[in-house]
Amino acid sequence: MADHKTCPPLTRESVKAAHKRIEPYIYRTPVATCETIDRIASTAQSERDEGHPVGQEKSNGTARPKVRLFFKCENQQRIGAFKARGAFHALGRLIEEDGLENVRKRGVVTHSSGNHAQALALAAKTHGVPAHIVMPGISTPSKIAGTKSHGANVIFSGSTSDEREAVVADVIKETGATLVPPYDHPDIILGQGTQALELEEQVEEFLKGDRKRSANARTGLDVVVAGIGGGGMLSGVATALHGTGIKVFGAEPNFEGANDAELGLKQNKRIEKVKTLTIADGLRTPVGVIPWSIVTDKEKLEGVYSVSEEEIKAALRLAMERAKLFIEPSAAVPLAVVLYNEDFRKKIEEMSGGEGLNIGIVLSGGNTTVEAIAKLFAPSEREAGQVGVNGEKVAENVAG
Amino acid sequence: MADHKTCPPLTRESVKAAHKRIEPYIYRTPVATCETIDRIASTAQSERDEGHPVGQEKSNGTARPKVRLFFKCENQQRIGAFKARGAFHALGRLIEEDGLENVRKRGVVTHSSGNHAQALALAAKTHGVPAHIVMPGISTPSKIAGTKSHGANVIFSGSTSDEREAVVADVIKETGATLVPPYDHPDIILGQGTQALELEEQVEEFLKGDRKRSANARTGLDVVVAGIGGGGMLSGVATALHGTGIKVFGAEPNFEGANDAELGLKQNKRIEKVKTLTIADGLRTPVGVIPWSIVTDKEKLEGVYSVSEEEIKAALRLAMERAKLFIEPSAAVPLAVVLYNEDFRKKIEEMSGGEGLNIGIVLSGGNTTVEAIAKLFAPSEREAGQVGVNGEKVAENVAG
Repeated sequence: MADHKTCPPLTRESVKAAHKRIEPYIYRTPVATCETIDRIASTAQSERDEGHPVGQEKSNGTARPKVRLFFKCENQQRIGAFKARGAFHALGRLIEEDGLENVRKRGVVTHSSGNHAQALALAAKTHGVPAHIVMPGISTPSKIAGTKSHGANVIFSGSTSDEREAVVADVIKETGATLVPPYDHPDIILGQGTQALELEEQVEEFLKGDRKRSANARTGLDVVVAGIGGGGMLSGVATALHGTGIKVFGAEPNFEGANDAELGLKQNKRIEKVKTLTIADGLRTPVGVIPWSIVTDKEKLEGVYSVSEEEIKAALRLAMERAKLFIEPSAAVPLAVVLYNEDFRKKIEEMSGGEGLNIGIVLSGGNTTVEAIAKLFAPSEREAGQVGVNGEKVAENVAG
Repeated sequence: MADHKTCPPLTRESVKAAHKRIEPYIYRTPVATCETIDRIASTAQSERDEGHPVGQEKSNGTARPKVRLFFKCENQQRIGAFKARGAFHALGRLIEEDGLENVRKRGVVTHSSGNHAQALALAAKTHGVPAHIVMPGISTPSKIAGTKSHGANVIFSGSTSDEREAVVADVIKETGATLVPPYDHPDIILGQGTQALELEEQVEEFLKGDRKRSANARTGLDVVVAGIGGGGMLSGVATALHGTGIKVFGAEPNFEGANDAELGLKQNKRIEKVKTLTIADGLRTPVGVIPWSIVTDKEKLEGVYSVSEEEIKAALRLAMERAKLFIEPSAAVPLAVVLYNEDFRKKIEEMSGGEGLNIGIVLSGGNTTVEAIAKLFAPSEREAGQVGVNGEKVAENVAG
């Protein structure tokens, strides 16, 4: 990977340069809106028909921010997640510094069982560079197949970080391959931040053409909420929007301590290890060293808020059933914060003016399967006995 | 409903007029593409990694049409389905003919447990017109709630057509409400056809900006495939595209005789009754009288092809997992025909030139639930024991 010392500074200008570099290789993903979800988000939790996902005891939330949500559909990005941005940028920078022939000779290596594996495999294939991807042997067959389908050399390891890193060290020793880490590197952070530039522009374009807009309505984004695992994306987004006046917030699951960024900010100390099985599997990782330096910068990040597993599931359901967007559980976490975290809702209610706030929500990826959705939402046996596949019985259909 | 005698003729010009009328009330839904699905569709079934959804015996299909697919996302239309188009058009025409005050005095009525119910309820609410919706008592609570949420007066009936029609007759007698049928009326057909005009334009716009396009590539749609139940949509699409050179095909499930259009065309006789529980519940209805007159017009429709339940499920899976589009099973039927119906694939292989064909696919709606998806794709107990919710176990996550 390009040496940290030669990396561009972590500034909005550098994100713009990164965007120019990767534009030929990535999609400008669409931005979606959903009136129904806007209406729910703008209603106090205690007054919603849907109530709160974990029941009455929590539904006494009364904040009623007036919001309009804009979903950045990185689930429709290449390889199905925003990770393609960082991978194309990091590899492009490496090629620029070392020359294509050298990089092709040595190849690249990473360890990942998730979206970064496929992203690096795709970027490497695009530039004719060999890619070695170290994956835990227990990874799902579909993820292994996905990574192999981009021509990567998949090498299996044990699942602890020590085991994975040992295999990576072996690969580097053997091939001279360059390590491209998943999030803790400036080139990755700058690449991930590019989605925020697009979102900013797309919302402005959308609002310009908006027939329902009143004369004094806001003409751009006020807030962006993005998930935080290793922190590559959130710190990229915060860097991209620094100085624009758009406030950036992080969103985390709180199951089994997955909210390490939120807890770390309270303790004023980065948490280095996390062991959680939250359904938001893309956000299980603790925040990396460089992302931490941005997360703790009050000029760049407003705060981090967390949500429960049931709240993530409820947001996932709404994204699918109402907005018709197929996303992975991790991608539902920012929406869950907007809908269910009462501290966050109070905060934005204060910020909200007469015309309300325009909130950008990063839908980070869509790499899940119908079986995984089935497992999350399988009806209990009691319910299953009452409702058919399409929820109704049809006796007879007669043409008019 | 506006009298048939005073309806505009079923022509492309009339569809254009319908589009002008409903534009303020409907969404111009996006058009999505998916390279992975294009690649699968352009590969012979016998050569695919995925194979054929029902196994080896069917995977000897060898047609290899070179295609590019464009998905018209009517799952993101208002009320989650294209039906909003026909309902807004029919009600708009009724108001034009009878005057708003008269229509408000009498109200409108229909019987439907599906998307037409919600579509008419929304259109009526928008114009301040009372709507009476007769729904079978066994309809799912979510559909009843959806219809009520648009302010409609929901009246329950038995589930046979005789029972439903008796209740509708009672409502008309009592209130003087005008019946707005779900598909068998020119105003509905013209409204549903408007999506084809948008699709045609959007594909042209997309291809103009396509960086990968070679100089002699086709610059617009060659083919459109749409589902056929009652036939309002397919006959609207065929009417909209008549004379443009774009070939229109119908797509049907074949479970328990749901392929009544295909069978009727072979017998040269409209089939009037169908009793099927295909998972494509929006396509259970037999073709109506007016749609039949268009379906049988060889100048307007090229043909109708059908697919099995397993093929519909396989297409539904690909639309969700690969294109990240949340759709209902009915909406997956045209994609299933393109991917798995070997007769259709041979037909378009013949039509296909050096640069391949551009095929528009109507994704008719997205009104399903995560529970319904869970029911369709629930892993068998054996599989469930092997794979976690996110398909992996994570031992420990350590920040870099």
